[in-house]
Amino acid sequence: VNVATLRQQFGSVSRQRRLAAGLSQEELADRAGLHRTYISLLERGQRTPSIEVVRQLANGLDTTMTSLVGDLEAKLD
Amino acid sequence: VNVATLRQQFGSVSRQRRLAAGLSQEELADRAGLHRTYISLLERGQRTPSIEVVRQLANGLDTTMTSLVGDLEAKLD
Repeated sequence: VNVATLRQQFGSVSRQRRLAAGLSQEELADRAGLHRTYISLLERGQRTPSIEVVRQLANGLDTTMTSLVGDLEAKLD
Repeated sequence: VNVATLRQQFGSVSRQRRLAAGLSQEELADRAGLHRTYISLLERGQRTPSIEVVRQLANGLDTTMTSLVGDLEAKLD
């Protein structure tokens, strides 16, 4: 697994979780304390998030970092 | 939880896992494809890892990202 695949799969997980929560990119950005532009780049696999960003996203999605990373790892297997 | 706490707790988890695996910083660095200096900074809470670094560490420790992040989140609770 290279870093581009990891980024793309994390973006895909983030997008799926956001849509499942019924949130727009702007709503998630507000809840997570991130910029809407950053959410957009992340979902398109154009940013590699730090664990701080993973934590902010988990907070914004009312889930845990462990749950997000578990979804990511399931996609990578 | 602020980012400094997150970093420090991740560094603590990383160090505990490395010691439990019986690896020196240099050995883990080699296995993970990271620099020994970076491992040292990370363990001291002076770097915020990306998910790519979390993946590299998990590989080097023969564990999963989910397991490392689970330990981190348990410490933060």
